[in-house]
Amino acid sequence: EDSPFLSSADAANKKSDYYDRNLALFEEELDIRPKVSSLLSRLVNYTNITQGAKEHEEEESAEASRRKTPKSPNMGTLMGVYLPCLQNIFGVILFLRLTWIVGMAGIIQSLLIVLMCCSCTMLTAISMSAIATNGVVPAGGAYFMISRSLGPEFGGAVGLCFYLGTTFASAMYILGAIEIFLKYLVPQAAIFHATDHAGSDSAMLNNMRVYGSICLSLMAVVVFVGVKYVNKLASLFLACVIISIVSIYAGAIKSLTHPPEFPICMLGNRTLVRDRFDVCSKTVIKDNITVPSQLWDRFCLPGNMSSTQCDDYFMQNNVTEIQGIPGLGSGIIRENMWGNYQQKGEILQKAGLHSVDAHGAMENFGMYVSADIATSFTLLVGIFFPSATGIMAGSNRSGDLRDAQKSIPVGTILAITTTSLVYISSVVLFGSCIEGVVLRDKFGDAVRKNLVVGTLSWPSPWVIVIGSFFSTVGAGLQSLTGAPRLLQAIAKDNIIPFLRVFGHGKSNGEPTWALILTGLIAELGILIASLDMVAPILSMFFLMCYLFVNLACAVQTLLRTPNWRPRFRYYHWALSFLGMSMCLALMFISSWYYAIVAMGIAGMIYKYIEYQGAEKEWGDGIRGLSLSAARYALLRLEVGPPHTKNWRPQLLVLLKLDEDLHVKYPRLLTFASQLKAGKGLTIVGSVIQGNFLDSYGEMQAAEQAIKNMMEIERVKGFCQVVVASKVREGIVHLIQSCGLGGMKHNTVVMGWPYGWRQSEDPRAWKTFINTVRCTTAAHLALMVPKNVSFYPSNHERFTDGNIDVWWIVHDGGMLMLLPFLLKQHKVWRKCKMRIFTVAQMDDNSIQMKKDLATFLYQLRIEQQNDRTLMMEQRSQMLRQMRLSSAERQREVNEEEEMTWTREKCEAERRNRNNHKCILLCLSPSLHSRDQSNVRRMHTAVKLNEVIVNRSHDARLVLLNMPGPPRNIDGDENYMEFLEVLTEGLERVLLVRGGGREVITIYS
Amino acid sequence: EDSPFLSSADAANKKSDYYDRNLALFEEELDIRPKVSSLLSRLVNYTNITQGAKEHEEEESAEASRRKTPKSPNMGTLMGVYLPCLQNIFGVILFLRLTWIVGMAGIIQSLLIVLMCCSCTMLTAISMSAIATNGVVPAGGAYFMISRSLGPEFGGAVGLCFYLGTTFASAMYILGAIEIFLKYLVPQAAIFHATDHAGSDSAMLNNMRVYGSICLSLMAVVVFVGVKYVNKLASLFLACVIISIVSIYAGAIKSLTHPPEFPICMLGNRTLVRDRFDVCSKTVIKDNITVPSQLWDRFCLPGNMSSTQCDDYFMQNNVTEIQGIPGLGSGIIRENMWGNYQQKGEILQKAGLHSVDAHGAMENFGMYVSADIATSFTLLVGIFFPSATGIMAGSNRSGDLRDAQKSIPVGTILAITTTSLVYISSVVLFGSCIEGVVLRDKFGDAVRKNLVVGTLSWPSPWVIVIGSFFSTVGAGLQSLTGAPRLLQAIAKDNIIPFLRVFGHGKSNGEPTWALILTGLIAELGILIASLDMVAPILSMFFLMCYLFVNLACAVQTLLRTPNWRPRFRYYHWALSFLGMSMCLALMFISSWYYAIVAMGIAGMIYKYIEYQGAEKEWGDGIRGLSLSAARYALLRLEVGPPHTKNWRPQLLVLLKLDEDLHVKYPRLLTFASQLKAGKGLTIVGSVIQGNFLDSYGEMQAAEQAIKNMMEIERVKGFCQVVVASKVREGIVHLIQSCGLGGMKHNTVVMGWPYGWRQSEDPRAWKTFINTVRCTTAAHLALMVPKNVSFYPSNHERFTDGNIDVWWIVHDGGMLMLLPFLLKQHKVWRKCKMRIFTVAQMDDNSIQMKKDLATFLYQLRIEQQNDRTLMMEQRSQMLRQMRLSSAERQREVNEEEEMTWTREKCEAERRNRNNHKCILLCLSPSLHSRDQSNVRRMHTAVKLNEVIVNRSHDARLVLLNMPGPPRNIDGDENYMEFLEVLTEGLERVLLVRGGGREVITIYS
Repeated sequence: EDSPFLSSADAANKKSDYYDRNLALFEEELDIRPKVSSLLSRLVNYTNITQGAKEHEEEESAEASRRKTPKSPNMGTLMGVYLPCLQNIFGVILFLRLTWIVGMAGIIQSLLIVLMCCSCTMLTAISMSAIATNGVVPAGGAYFMISRSLGPEFGGAVGLCFYLGTTFASAMYILGAIEIFLKYLVPQAAIFHATDHAGSDSAMLNNMRVYGSICLSLMAVVVFVGVKYVNKLASLFLACVIISIVSIYAGAIKSLTHPPEFPICMLGNRTLVRDRFDVCSKTVIKDNITVPSQLWDRFCLPGNMSSTQCDDYFMQNNVTEIQGIPGLGSGIIRENMWGNYQQKGEILQKAGLHSVDAHGAMENFGMYVSADIATSFTLLVGIFFPSATGIMAGSNRSGDLRDAQKSIPVGTILAITTTSLVYISSVVLFGSCIEGVVLRDKFGDAVRKNLVVGTLSWPSPWVIVIGSFFSTVGAGLQSLTGAPRLLQAIAKDNIIPFLRVFGHGKSNGEPTWALILTGLIAELGILIASLDMVAPILSMFFLMCYLFVNLACAVQTLLRTPNWRPRFRYYHWALSFLGMSMCLALMFISSWYYAIVAMGIAGMIYKYIEYQGAEKEWGDGIRGLSLSAARYALLRLEVGPPHTKNWRPQLLVLLKLDEDLHVKYPRLLTFASQLKAGKGLTIVGSVIQGNFLDSYGEMQAAEQAIKNMMEIERVKGFCQVVVASKVREGIVHLIQSCGLGGMKHNTVVMGWPYGWRQSEDPRAWKTFINTVRCTTAAHLALMVPKNVSFYPSNHERFTDGNIDVWWIVHDGGMLMLLPFLLKQHKVWRKCKMRIFTVAQMDDNSIQMKKDLATFLYQLRIEQQNDRTLMMEQRSQMLRQMRLSSAERQREVNEEEEMTWTREKCEAERRNRNNHKCILLCLSPSLHSRDQSNVRRMHTAVKLNEVIVNRSHDARLVLLNMPGPPRNIDGDENYMEFLEVLTEGLERVLLVRGGGREVITIYS
Repeated sequence: EDSPFLSSADAANKKSDYYDRNLALFEEELDIRPKVSSLLSRLVNYTNITQGAKEHEEEESAEASRRKTPKSPNMGTLMGVYLPCLQNIFGVILFLRLTWIVGMAGIIQSLLIVLMCCSCTMLTAISMSAIATNGVVPAGGAYFMISRSLGPEFGGAVGLCFYLGTTFASAMYILGAIEIFLKYLVPQAAIFHATDHAGSDSAMLNNMRVYGSICLSLMAVVVFVGVKYVNKLASLFLACVIISIVSIYAGAIKSLTHPPEFPICMLGNRTLVRDRFDVCSKTVIKDNITVPSQLWDRFCLPGNMSSTQCDDYFMQNNVTEIQGIPGLGSGIIRENMWGNYQQKGEILQKAGLHSVDAHGAMENFGMYVSADIATSFTLLVGIFFPSATGIMAGSNRSGDLRDAQKSIPVGTILAITTTSLVYISSVVLFGSCIEGVVLRDKFGDAVRKNLVVGTLSWPSPWVIVIGSFFSTVGAGLQSLTGAPRLLQAIAKDNIIPFLRVFGHGKSNGEPTWALILTGLIAELGILIASLDMVAPILSMFFLMCYLFVNLACAVQTLLRTPNWRPRFRYYHWALSFLGMSMCLALMFISSWYYAIVAMGIAGMIYKYIEYQGAEKEWGDGIRGLSLSAARYALLRLEVGPPHTKNWRPQLLVLLKLDEDLHVKYPRLLTFASQLKAGKGLTIVGSVIQGNFLDSYGEMQAAEQAIKNMMEIERVKGFCQVVVASKVREGIVHLIQSCGLGGMKHNTVVMGWPYGWRQSEDPRAWKTFINTVRCTTAAHLALMVPKNVSFYPSNHERFTDGNIDVWWIVHDGGMLMLLPFLLKQHKVWRKCKMRIFTVAQMDDNSIQMKKDLATFLYQLRIEQQNDRTLMMEQRSQMLRQMRLSSAERQREVNEEEEMTWTREKCEAERRNRNNHKCILLCLSPSLHSRDQSNVRRMHTAVKLNEVIVNRSHDARLVLLNMPGPPRNIDGDENYMEFLEVLTEGLERVLLVRGGGREVITIYS
């Protein structure tokens, strides 16, 4: 009952029968369309094995796999995502700089800073969650997410940004750890000592550089020797962070009733450096005598009670002691509410205290606590932002999670919420417990070289000092472990060739080269030496990375790819867009020049990868984007035909293929490519005679052949081969249906049917005339290059010669435009354009000459010819006009005599030894029936004479193409006319407009 | 001889003959393709009349046209472009702020500022020249150039920016004039006076506000009453500028040998305000007795020679006099080389002077010259930039120029060169002649309230003061004249509806309303009251405008529209791009928040115009851009078939039209629109039977009908109607050749041939099966909605019900994807998806159930159902599987008994009263010949039973469509199978995959 069809013995022997029967309808295709059950089991097995990334299988160290089989993913949300994120987000800034930020920016603006940074990461986390829950995530974190959804170019650029950010983060952590070590733990370890007040800064920086470099080397060795020890210590480091934070809260709560004793010594309203003297008063009573205190000695001549040798300011102001940490209940919050930004070197002053306004001697300024850098809101944003990074920690472990699609969003968002709350409450607590001058005292000079946040904490400041030291060292180690692995992953993807070397590792899988590079870059950060300078740098790189995570999510959502179905539902493109904007805004707010540099770096990497031509088919959103972009652009186009200003030749080149599917006249393509200065569309069409069901393969072969030829001739465009039962029908279909929406051809290019006269089959020229008729019916322009084989290849260069335009009727201006376009191509560049026009008897030639000159000037066509040439040409043109009119005069006389008898015809034929009279001579009936044909033929002969006379040495002759006769009987005559008209010319291009203007004098 | 064909009498009577004869070849088309000569004369006449803009013809005042006929354009480069540009570019900043900028930024950085601003405008001038020489320019300047080359949206946005810039410029000029008036000409005219040192700033601002408003009103009245007076004074204003500049040069040269006497009184190294005391010394000797000087009295208790009551700093430092203008030869240039930025309120100090370090009493700080605002490089850029604007003055007059295409580039570029040289030389001269503390003394306090640049000039400071006053008033008047006319031009273009009212003018053509608005906006600028605050605002607007001029040029160049042929040849897209970048950089450098606000304003205007849907067909570059973008995107696409991740259904919907060219089943379009969540391509194709040459009109009518129907059904896509001799051929052609490049359909949607059984004509279903075969051959997916008329319209909403998928064979995943896509549409949103699969005897049902669940989870398909529903469905599915297998059991037994005799067949037929046995019963020959057909029919019957049983109340049933028989004989059977399979179901969608995967579990 439970499983009725599991191995039911009686059915087993008939299995194959059932199988056949049940799927009888589909049996012919079972090989390509498999049974559902077999597909299902295959898919599920597959995913079980490659949970984690296929790409990263090789990366797992050989050692590890020898030790044990890959453990099944079994981590929950708490252990797998929440705690790692928490550990990564909390960092050195909370302990070393948050009090200072609160002091400088005030509570309100500090809250604004925290909110900006945290909401930025929160929005990014939402986008990241959407990306991470859209299907099986390969292990590899941000880099894999972005590269697989935005493509190799963006992926590589952003991956490297993330790598640089992580590397500089390790430098920042090391600097933080050294700062704690040198300032608070073992100050006497300092190697360099300041000789005077001004030099103390640079001495400290040198100390940082030396110790930082040593520390970095040690850490690199640790990472190289054993990552597993680092991983084991992770929980210890986490514990340090948590204990430290708890200690701060405890201290703050305790301060409500028992504020800690931290007296601050003030001179007037200036804060004094506490470790330069012992007692906070001007005099001390020693053996009942009032003697000068140490403080007095510092400001005056030592040992002298006389006030004349004293510092001006010292004498005029009192020494007072105020409470450094008045505690939660003290109402100090009101004083700390608003910002108090300072210039570099500005002395920390308490606004409320009485002070007599005197300047005092510069030499004594070392006694006061002063600002070591100039602060501003924007700078503080850059310094604080690293405290909000680290949100990718969870998604980096997707391979180890029991249910990555649930754990990543929940864990990450919870962690960000937790940290945000901690930051916000810390800001408020610091602001309400600690005196402003102490908050602004970055290195705790007023509190005897103690960490300011430590003074608040309970039970002991050492909890914070030691806790933050270890957690900072831990964070540094983890960054230094993570960064090389990220670089290795990018290198192994092989999208950035010069990184290839970093893909290799030691035999134990350790990325040695990557570690060395990471160490070198981190050393750069350490040489900068100041935490406040390094923090904005890594902020930039992380912000860049987050920006692209948001972009990836927004693009995917807006594109609505069917495969974009994140299991995490609470995303929205507007949120991602907001996140993106916030990242961009934060970048520019914290430092616009760093932002530009970071973007420049990312841009260069992008271009490099694009240049290297990474052809990874990752099915990324950007590839999808181009589809959407094309669709959108096409839909936009379909409003109507373009304005004359925007008219470009959009070619449909009709190619003939021979029996072996080779292109018969590839020069047609050459010619099309030479016309491409217009940057319009080119569709190359061809017709295969046959039946579609049978000829699919042949069609594809033809398409390939044409595409190859297009590649050779450098024609960028599309290829369209159709199978039709008749060639003529296929051409009509191509003319009708090529292109899409507004992206339609407006000009047809076809070859001349050379063998039409010899061919027995009238279809050869019938197809030609039919195509001419179709283009006219469809309002398309037509170009027929005759003797196309003599046309120049793309490698030839005409160094002189003319392109002659015979402008007989105005046909939309195609004749003017085509030479201009051809001259953009290097083959024709040096050719000169000459325009011949035919004056009628009733034309005012002088006026016409002027008009033409004005017209051409306004068309800006003749720009490459200088004025004298212009004049010369004009006179040539004028001469031409005269000549042709003279000829016409002669013609008139001739015609008067002409009667077109057979004899005359024969004589004419002998005279000119060509075919133009064949038709007329052989069909005398036509003579009487259609006088028009005679006149046409006569005109053709005369025109041809003039053209040959003038343009026999032209590189190319452009000519209006007469329309086909309305009556279908005249078709053969029409072919004859065209032959006669173009006879004796080497290269002729017959041009017929599409019935609209294509050129304008207006801008 | 001279004109042989001009009215030659003998030929006159035969004119018509010649005419005919000469154009005999083209005679049939002379009506649409005119003679060249007639076209030429028409064009030239036209351009003579409308030199200047057609759009602006109405604008010319009626009065003016009454007075005289429009004068012919006769201005040369010098008068028409060079001098107007010069006058517009030089401005108040040169006289009022350039010395101060040099003092603050130092010579090097000042040169940098000048170079940045001037090269930005130079690059813009190059772009502008290219645009202005690309054909006949309509008068109207920047606005017309941009709107005609970038389209109404950008044109409107940029035009308004230009308008706002000009308006704020008038405010700036007025403020400058008032500053000269109140500070240097008539200081006693001040209304508000400071009561103390701190209040002097705000008192001055209030004075500026009052006088500024009065001045603005007066100027507005002048403009309203008579523009012609303003124009007449233009040359006077220009003369003022030139004389002033010459005076500066003269003074500088004279200072080489005879530096002017301008002693500056210093106390220590601090600069003293010179008009607070008489003698520059601590004591004076009066009647041979040393008595305290005025200066002493100011710093100490008046009249008391005792030093105890004195200011600390005064006592300890000496009073010295230094030379304010040491002159060219003095070497002061070395001191002024580097910047000396100051904080607000910082006292101007001379670095070289000895000073004892004391602070001094705050009360006496009014005695020193101090900085009134904080300066920085970026701020100075914003303040200086207006000095480089005004380059459009020439192009605004294109209508009056003899040869605009030559004058505009030459004149503008020369003018910019001239001004740049003046600025550069001024910077160097100021830096080499004037003492640093004087340079930094913005209001000339140290030089007795004299214009600093005036102190340098020769013969008299008054030349500069009066000259700059008049030129500034003139510039203000001109801005105030120009701005309303610009607004009127924009309003008349009617692209921004709410501006329409400003298009109207008084009877004399004066734009009254526009003038009022301009006055109000300028008043805003005047209320800001500080020239240093207003200058950056107008910088933003001008930079925005220049940015777009550069963009327009770059876009047009890169697009290579054939009609982009500027006569000015020395442009390059890279220069325009550089100019664009410089504009953007300058915007952000001078003030990033103003930049964002300005961009925001422009963006909003853009969106507003776009929203209002201005459909101006101006043949602009942006419309051309979308063509290029579409082409580029399409070319990019053609790399290969998309990744499974990017697969979207790209539909080719085959529509049938009835005799009246109406769409027969519009619900096919409805269904397609409901599938459009995939946002892919939709091509709607149809075939008209006939001959293309005759049916062109019919084809267009059909296309229009389909487009209308697409509009009604909200299908965004393309329409393709072809004329073919046979419908079947037409469909094959559509399937072959629709789409372009990578933008091809991958799925065909076609209707069911409902009447196939009734129809005598076998073509009805032959066409259907042929299409199925073609889609298979072309590897396209196929969807056949049966009973499409019962499908829901777009207005219906299913509030419950299921979409049932019968997943019989795996066919690429189309069956999974389609319900997901449908559910994105509001009609189907509330439907639930159920998947039925058919288990085989040899399947492990438990495993299969689990596998299916995992698979669906990973596909993220079931996301809208919660877990309990999932479970329910699964059990339902399991039950279904059991049932169907149970059925199959029964079926097995049945078949064993079955022999398919005629009787049995008849019985079967009676039982189920449908057609499924007709075929088998009527052709017993088949029985023996094709056992397979029997089995197929049997399966169809059984499957149909199960489906009807389970899914009779489903909203939609999706079903795998079996492939057509390989043997063409089975076609009729095949139709029967399909009928049987889908019988009794209300809405069925038969789906056939295209032979590739369309859905993936990977992200």
